[in-house]
Amino acid sequence: MKIAIDAMGGDYAPAEIVKGAVIAAREYGVGIILVGPAERLEGELAKHDRSGTNIEIVATNEYLVEGEHPAYALRQKRHASIIVATKLVRDGKAAAVVGAGPTGGVVASALQVLGTVEGVARPVVGGPFLGFAPDTIMMDLGGNVDCRPDQLLDFAIVGTVYARKMLNIPNPSVALLSVGAEEGKGNEVVRESYPLFQKSGLNFIGNVEGYDILSGRANVIICDGFVGNILVKFCEALGKTVCQWLEDQLGGKLPESDIKEMVKSMLLATNPADAIGGGPLWAVNGIVVVSHGRSRHEEIAKAIGQAKSAVELDLVGSLKTELAAARSKLKIPGI
Amino acid sequence: MKIAIDAMGGDYAPAEIVKGAVIAAREYGVGIILVGPAERLEGELAKHDRSGTNIEIVATNEYLVEGEHPAYALRQKRHASIIVATKLVRDGKAAAVVGAGPTGGVVASALQVLGTVEGVARPVVGGPFLGFAPDTIMMDLGGNVDCRPDQLLDFAIVGTVYARKMLNIPNPSVALLSVGAEEGKGNEVVRESYPLFQKSGLNFIGNVEGYDILSGRANVIICDGFVGNILVKFCEALGKTVCQWLEDQLGGKLPESDIKEMVKSMLLATNPADAIGGGPLWAVNGIVVVSHGRSRHEEIAKAIGQAKSAVELDLVGSLKTELAAARSKLKIPGI
Repeated sequence: MKIAIDAMGGDYAPAEIVKGAVIAAREYGVGIILVGPAERLEGELAKHDRSGTNIEIVATNEYLVEGEHPAYALRQKRHASIIVATKLVRDGKAAAVVGAGPTGGVVASALQVLGTVEGVARPVVGGPFLGFAPDTIMMDLGGNVDCRPDQLLDFAIVGTVYARKMLNIPNPSVALLSVGAEEGKGNEVVRESYPLFQKSGLNFIGNVEGYDILSGRANVIICDGFVGNILVKFCEALGKTVCQWLEDQLGGKLPESDIKEMVKSMLLATNPADAIGGGPLWAVNGIVVVSHGRSRHEEIAKAIGQAKSAVELDLVGSLKTELAAARSKLKIPGI
Repeated sequence: MKIAIDAMGGDYAPAEIVKGAVIAAREYGVGIILVGPAERLEGELAKHDRSGTNIEIVATNEYLVEGEHPAYALRQKRHASIIVATKLVRDGKAAAVVGAGPTGGVVASALQVLGTVEGVARPVVGGPFLGFAPDTIMMDLGGNVDCRPDQLLDFAIVGTVYARKMLNIPNPSVALLSVGAEEGKGNEVVRESYPLFQKSGLNFIGNVEGYDILSGRANVIICDGFVGNILVKFCEALGKTVCQWLEDQLGGKLPESDIKEMVKSMLLATNPADAIGGGPLWAVNGIVVVSHGRSRHEEIAKAIGQAKSAVELDLVGSLKTELAAARSKLKIPGI
């Protein structure tokens, strides 16, 4: 299996990307295709022991930089590294692509080069967003800010596949995130989604509240990307604030190493994106793993591991099968 | 000053309500009117030393119970204690009313008996929701799940008055909670609200993200009640989870009393409603303080203290003045 990497994506590209790729090549036994300026990448590769690895370079001199408008930049830079890397997936030369940013560029490339699976308009981002609740995933954590009920149902199907395939939960329970458990509770889109979810054939358990993100009541919690984005960022910020508070409270009372251990554990629990390196971009026609822009080599290596798992689990094929099943149940062609 | 108390509202009514009222009568030097069944309340009062307090009873035998639909129950129980207590405010016999639940009943009574201030359709709930960010308040944390831009602006005006009067911040900064700082970022209602906020004459600093609930970037953060409710409940649950984690991590490493102190401090920081006892219900034509249903005497006493401050600060009068000023700036009669 070969995995394409945008070697120029991310705050610490290309040095940390290349380093992470070398580690992953050895650790996961995958072939790596680094995409970017040949000389710079050769220079980076020369810093590492490459014995026993299978790493090649596909050369391009263009790449996106943080702050550009991704769709606009991609029109100007037709050979941007993320585009070239994603095309390797489309053309069957790589099984997956990993990109560490800018996120908008990874998503735009995926849409442009691979497109979405039939009947789903936009890519979806999701996953466990809290280490305290490892069997609960949330979707959408991406950019779908205004959603229709049928889009929320798409997310629920995607989430069900995620929970089955990546968390090994055979019959994942699905819930809508709302302000009360009863059917009539929620904003307009939640109230309209409820009956659609009931008819979907998914293991729908109704609405859950903000408490339940941690209670484990549902394996798949569905919200629009507006709510999801605010929750994730709030959670990350609260985690960091608690770490600072721990240092203030425990300084002088516990050995420094114990405090460090606790702080690390709290950070991972509240910032799981760092813990798992990144996540698959769902509903696109191919495996695309998005890693944080601030990823260092450890996170890049983990993201490559995620990409390998996603390929082995046939995420795209499973998703298409589940979508077709849900659609036939609902008797709506292209939900 | 006399404050009316629904002595039958709350999970521990009337015992804890009466106990809290006796404490508050002494501590804050306010007169108290307890509303509920005379004999039961006399019985409760007899358990306490009432010397130096001014407490009277207004008798009614009807009251709401948890689980009833508030609007429906209030039609059946025209002499429910919360209604009778709220009428004391309307009739000038009390300066404020305190109710510990059911929240829907307190809100419905306020709407029915006092009504909202001119031009604002629905009551608003808000305040500091995180002890880690004491100079930041959020609105709406109440039940306004689907909001129009003009309603969000109402919340912002209410929040500005709150921050000025209750947090002593002379020129509170106001922000819309969104998924990115730039003007175009956000869901439809946020994108439409942005230009309205810019023209409002408020100290509007633009959008803030989920991180900024903790960063102190804005004094008043505006969201609809759907997002606000989910955030508050998530925050409370996360706080409790962190407390459990602290006990697991620190057990045997620190003295029990130190751990208890830390747990208490974490709970207060993440559940400020418990810390401050309750909050004013904004935009109604009178001072109504809503306390948690699970309030014990300490919280009830604090809620009565909140009611006293709200009267002294003339919250309702200030709000009317600010609303009029913002409207004349926007040149929209009745935003």
